[in-house]
Amino acid sequence: MSAAVGLDARLTDDHHESLRLWLRLLTCSNLIENHVRKALAAQFKTTLPRFDLMAQLERAPQGLQMGELSRRLLVTGGNVTGIVDQLERAGLLLRAEDPADRRAYLVKLTKEGRRQFAQMASAHESWIVKLFSGLSVREQRALNESLSSLRAQLTRKTP
Amino acid sequence: MSAAVGLDARLTDDHHESLRLWLRLLTCSNLIENHVRKALAAQFKTTLPRFDLMAQLERAPQGLQMGELSRRLLVTGGNVTGIVDQLERAGLLLRAEDPADRRAYLVKLTKEGRRQFAQMASAHESWIVKLFSGLSVREQRALNESLSSLRAQLTRKTP
Repeated sequence: MSAAVGLDARLTDDHHESLRLWLRLLTCSNLIENHVRKALAAQFKTTLPRFDLMAQLERAPQGLQMGELSRRLLVTGGNVTGIVDQLERAGLLLRAEDPADRRAYLVKLTKEGRRQFAQMASAHESWIVKLFSGLSVREQRALNESLSSLRAQLTRKTP
Repeated sequence: MSAAVGLDARLTDDHHESLRLWLRLLTCSNLIENHVRKALAAQFKTTLPRFDLMAQLERAPQGLQMGELSRRLLVTGGNVTGIVDQLERAGLLLRAEDPADRRAYLVKLTKEGRRQFAQMASAHESWIVKLFSGLSVREQRALNESLSSLRAQLTRKTP
C-alpha cells in the first residue's frame, strides 16, 4: 500500500513508541477514508466533502446558517460556499430566508437531497461495517475503549 | 471541539457499532493532525505537506525521482511540484541529474534541509509524545495492538 509506505517514512527505528502509535492510527484512518472517497466516487459520483456537508444538513432539518455550517465542517476543509452552490444547482439543497435573522439565510436539504443522502449514508455504513468486519467483537470493543480514552485525553489537551 | 461535533454528525443513534468506531478513529486522527498542523505553522512557519515531503527525502539520501516522490506522498495530496519548487527556492532541497536515468532528475535535501528537518522531526516527536501522554502504558499497548490488527485487515481488503 502506498499509503502505508508513505506514512512510515515519518518514522525511524529509534523514535518513541507514541510516534509509532500515531502513525499506525493515521495509516488506518487514511486507508479507510481513501476507501470511502473511492466508493463515493464510484457508486454515487460524489465527493467526501459533499457527503459530509449533506450529513450536517440532514441532522439539522431546520437548516443551518453558512457560518455555522462552515464551523461544523472545519475539519474537512473544502470550500463550503462552492459545495453549497454545486448542491443547489443539482437540486439537493436550497437557500431560504432565516426567520430569526433577516440578514442571513439558512441552507437546508431538499426532499430529493434527503432521499439521495439516505441512500449514500446506508451504503457508507455498509462499507464501514465491511472494513471492520475482520476484527472480532472483542477486538472492536477493545479498540473502541482505547479510542474513547484517547479522545478524552485529546479534547482536554487540544486548544 | 468543532472537529468532534462535525464528525459526529455522520452518526445517528441506530447506526452500527462499526460506524461509531470509525468516527471515533477519524476524530482522534483529525484532532492530532490539526494539532500538528498548527504547531508546524506556529513553530516552524511550515505546513504538513512540506513536512511530509521532507520526511520522504530524509529517508532517501540518494534522492528520489519526482514520480516516486509523488507516489509516496499520494495519501497527503498536495501539489508535489509546487512544494518542491518552494523548498528549492528556500534552499532546503535541490534537483540533480539522475546518474541512472539521464531523462530524469532526482530531488534531495540539502545540508540545510536536513538540518531544519531534524529540528522539526524532533519537535514533532515531542508533540506526539505529549498528546499521547494521558494514556497509560497499558492503554497505549492495547491501542497499538488493536490498530495493528485493524491495519492488517484493511491492507487485505483495500485494493
